[in-house]
Amino acid sequence: MDYRTNTCGELTEKHLNKKVKLSGWINSVRDHGKIRFIDLRDRYGLTQLVINKESIQENLNDEDIISIEGEVSSRPKGTVNDKIPTGKIEVKVKKLEILQKCSFLPFEVNKDKEVSEDLKLKYRYLDLRKTSSMKPIIDRHEIFAIIRNYMNENGFIDIETPILTKSTPEGARDYLVPSRVNKGKFYALPQSPQIFKQLLMISGFDKYYQIARCFRDEDLRADRQPEFTQLDIEMSFINEEDIQELIEGLMKDLFEKKLNIKLKTPFPRIIYNEAMKKYKSDKPDLRTEKEKFAFCWVVDFPLFEWNQDENRYDPMHHPFTSPKPEDLKNLDKNPGNVMARAYDLVLNGTEIGGGSIRIHEQKTQNRIFELLKIEKKEADKRFGFLLEALKYAPPHGGIALGLDRIAAIMTNNESIRDVIAFPKNKAAKDLLTDAPSDVEEKQLKELGIDLRKAK
Amino acid sequence: MDYRTNTCGELTEKHLNKKVKLSGWINSVRDHGKIRFIDLRDRYGLTQLVINKESIQENLNDEDIISIEGEVSSRPKGTVNDKIPTGKIEVKVKKLEILQKCSFLPFEVNKDKEVSEDLKLKYRYLDLRKTSSMKPIIDRHEIFAIIRNYMNENGFIDIETPILTKSTPEGARDYLVPSRVNKGKFYALPQSPQIFKQLLMISGFDKYYQIARCFRDEDLRADRQPEFTQLDIEMSFINEEDIQELIEGLMKDLFEKKLNIKLKTPFPRIIYNEAMKKYKSDKPDLRTEKEKFAFCWVVDFPLFEWNQDENRYDPMHHPFTSPKPEDLKNLDKNPGNVMARAYDLVLNGTEIGGGSIRIHEQKTQNRIFELLKIEKKEADKRFGFLLEALKYAPPHGGIALGLDRIAAIMTNNESIRDVIAFPKNKAAKDLLTDAPSDVEEKQLKELGIDLRKAK
Repeated sequence: MDYRTNTCGELTEKHLNKKVKLSGWINSVRDHGKIRFIDLRDRYGLTQLVINKESIQENLNDEDIISIEGEVSSRPKGTVNDKIPTGKIEVKVKKLEILQKCSFLPFEVNKDKEVSEDLKLKYRYLDLRKTSSMKPIIDRHEIFAIIRNYMNENGFIDIETPILTKSTPEGARDYLVPSRVNKGKFYALPQSPQIFKQLLMISGFDKYYQIARCFRDEDLRADRQPEFTQLDIEMSFINEEDIQELIEGLMKDLFEKKLNIKLKTPFPRIIYNEAMKKYKSDKPDLRTEKEKFAFCWVVDFPLFEWNQDENRYDPMHHPFTSPKPEDLKNLDKNPGNVMARAYDLVLNGTEIGGGSIRIHEQKTQNRIFELLKIEKKEADKRFGFLLEALKYAPPHGGIALGLDRIAAIMTNNESIRDVIAFPKNKAAKDLLTDAPSDVEEKQLKELGIDLRKAK
Repeated sequence: MDYRTNTCGELTEKHLNKKVKLSGWINSVRDHGKIRFIDLRDRYGLTQLVINKESIQENLNDEDIISIEGEVSSRPKGTVNDKIPTGKIEVKVKKLEILQKCSFLPFEVNKDKEVSEDLKLKYRYLDLRKTSSMKPIIDRHEIFAIIRNYMNENGFIDIETPILTKSTPEGARDYLVPSRVNKGKFYALPQSPQIFKQLLMISGFDKYYQIARCFRDEDLRADRQPEFTQLDIEMSFINEEDIQELIEGLMKDLFEKKLNIKLKTPFPRIIYNEAMKKYKSDKPDLRTEKEKFAFCWVVDFPLFEWNQDENRYDPMHHPFTSPKPEDLKNLDKNPGNVMARAYDLVLNGTEIGGGSIRIHEQKTQNRIFELLKIEKKEADKRFGFLLEALKYAPPHGGIALGLDRIAAIMTNNESIRDVIAFPKNKAAKDLLTDAPSDVEEKQLKELGIDLRKAK
C-alpha cells in the first residue's frame, strides 16, 4: 500500500479540497458526539483529522498508528489554531486503517508528566516520541551538518581512524577487547584519535578532521558517558592562532546558522594564571546579564602539574603537548615553570574543547617521557611507533571539541544524555538493551578468557 | 614562525614576482652544478624550487621537511611542465629552514617501487605520502561528503547509535568488551545498528541515516576487515520501491558529482531465481564492453535457506526481514517457499548493499524466531526489548550499503584496505601500533577476567 501523499506538518490552505493520505501516531482523540477529532502526529507536525463516527467506528486511542485517506478542508471559524502551520485546515477522513494498535503504555507519551529516569531509559524509544525529547536529537544532527560543511569548505579531510586499536595515554582507563584470533592479546578502544591524527600529519594530509567516537572507562561522574563524540582536528605548519581562528570561525558560523546569534570574534584570551587569580577557575564563566553565550580561550597553561602521591610530574594536558620554545631550557632544572603551547576553549564556564601545538621532535618527546617517569622500555613498548614516526613529523597541532556538551548547551539541555539517542545510565548500563550482559561460556572459551572468581 | 603564504599546488603565473613562503616535503633534488632544483610537495601539489648553492649550502635530501622564502618567477623556455598547474613557474629561494631532517627511510617514498604489504602497513604513515595511497583516502572523504549532503537534503536525520551495546543477530561473532563497573558482564560491539534503527522508527524519526562503524569477529577472508563502515538507512511508512528509488537517486548523484558519470535509472531488477538460473550467481556482473559500472537490484529472495548441519532454517538476510504478505499462509506448512521483502544492490558483480522491509508485528516476529529454532526463552533474553518495542512499531524498512567496498570500486582499487587510512592485516593485526597487544595483570584484575591457560 501507499502510506501517504503528505506528512502531518505539510498541509495548509494551499491544499484545500485535495485528496490526501496521511500516516502517523494518534496524539490525542477528542470525542464530540457524532464527530471525533484526532491530532495525527509525525516528525513533521500535527494535522487535525475529523472522523464521522457513523462511517468509521473503530476504537481509536492515543499512540495507535493509523493511515487515513481524506479531503483537506478549512477549519470552521473560531477553531483555527495559529500556533501551528497546519492550524487553518483539517482533513475529513473517508477511509482509515489501523497499522498498529497500541495496547499498553508504560507511561503517557508526549504529555508533560514527570517520568522516572530509569523508566524513560528503558523505554527510550517511547520517550523519544515526546517532541521535547526528539527535538534535541534533530538539533544535534543539524549542528553536526553545519560543522561538517564548515570543515569541508575549509579544506579539511574527514578521515576515519580505528576503533579497535591500542591503548593511548589520555589519563583514563581504556576499554579492552579480547582478540579471538590472537589469544591473550587485547585491542583498546580509543580515548581519542590523538596518535592517529598526528600520524596523518606525518603522512602530509595537512588538514584533518573527524567527528569521532571516543571511549573512557571512568567511574561515571554526574554527566559523563562511557562513549562520547568529539570533533577532532589536526593541522600542519601552523601556530596556536591558526587553530584558534579556525575554531572562532566555526563557532561563529554554527551559532549564526543554528541559533541566529552573531558571536563577536576574536574570543577573549585569558592567561591560565590570571584566570585562577581572578576567577578561581581555569574555566571562567564570562556571561554578563545580556549575554547568553560567552566564549573565551584559556592559554599559557603550565606543561606539568605536580603529582604529590606519585612524586612525579603529570602532564596538564597530554604528553604530546609542546613546551614553549623559550622554556625548553627550563625542562631540566625547573620543569614546573615550563609553559605549554596549549589552549582550552571555554563556553559559559564549561570547558568545551582543548588542544595544543604538538611536539614534533623525537628528542623532546623522549625527554618529556623521562620527566613523566615513563621508563624508556615502557615508552618504547607503548609509544615506540609514535616516537619512530616523529622522526618524520612536520610541525603540527590541533584541538578536540566535546560535541555532546556543545549540543547540550546549544539546545538548552542540562545533561548530555538529552542529546544522545541511546545514552547509558550512571552505572554505565543501557537499560533498554540490558547491556552489558552475561555471555556464554562458549564465547569466553573462544576468546581465551575466564571470569575471575569473586573472593 | 609563519610557515607559509601559499600551498605547493597554488602558485601560477598570476603570482609572478610575488614574495612567498612555502613549507613541505622534498619530493626530489636535482643537482645542476651551482644550482639545485627541488620539487617541494604537499597535499596540494608540487612546486619547483631553485636554490643557488653559493648562498644556501645545507645538505638536502628526499623527504626532508623544509620551509622556504622566495620569489615566484617564470620557468625558462623549454623547462615548462604542462602536466601540473604550477608547471609554468618556479620559486627562487632566498631563505631556507630545515624543519625535520629525514635520516633514514624504511622504503623510498612516492616512487613506484614495489614494497612488501607488511612493511607498508608498519609504516603506513610513510606509505600514505605516496600520491597513489593518499588519493583514495581523499576520494573517500569526498564520496562521504556527497552522500551526507544527499541524505541531509532528502530529510534524513543523522543519528549516532551506541558502539558499546548488546549482541545483535547478524550471523557473525561479536567482539566483546568486559565491563569493569559491572563485573562478569560484557558489552558487544555492533555488527550493525540494525536494532537501534528499528527503534528509531518506533520513536517516529521517520528517516534515519548514519555512516556507521560496524564490527565482525570473523576469520578474515581475502578482503574483509574487523571494523568496516556502512551507510545505514531506515524509513517509515514505505515500500521496497521507496528505498530503491532513494538509493538510485543517491548513486546517480554520487557518480555524477564524483566521477562525472551519468547513471541510467531505474537499475534493472532481477529476480533471485532468475539470477541463479541465468548467471549462476545472486550477484551477477552485468557489465557490457562499453560500460564501466553496471548496477542491478536482486529481488524476491527466499526468506529462509535450509541449514543441513543444524537441521533448521536460517534467515537468508536477517531474522527481522518481513515475509511477503501473500506468503504468510505458507509460513507453517512450507517455509522454504516463503519469499522475503528483501533486496540486494549489486555493482559489477559485487554485493554493495542489502535491505528489506522489516517485520513490524510482534506475532510474526515471534513466529520467525520459532522457525529459526530460537527458543522463546532465548529470544526473550536476547531480543525481548525488541519484541516489546515491536508492539509500538510503524511499517518500516531500510538498507545498508558497504562504503569501504563502494569507495574501493569508485577509486578503482582492488582492496578495501586501500581506502582505509589504517587497515588491519589478514590476521586482524594493526602492524603499525601492534594492536592487539598484551595488557597488564592489573588491568585484567580490574576487569574481573583471567587468561585461560593453553592446554
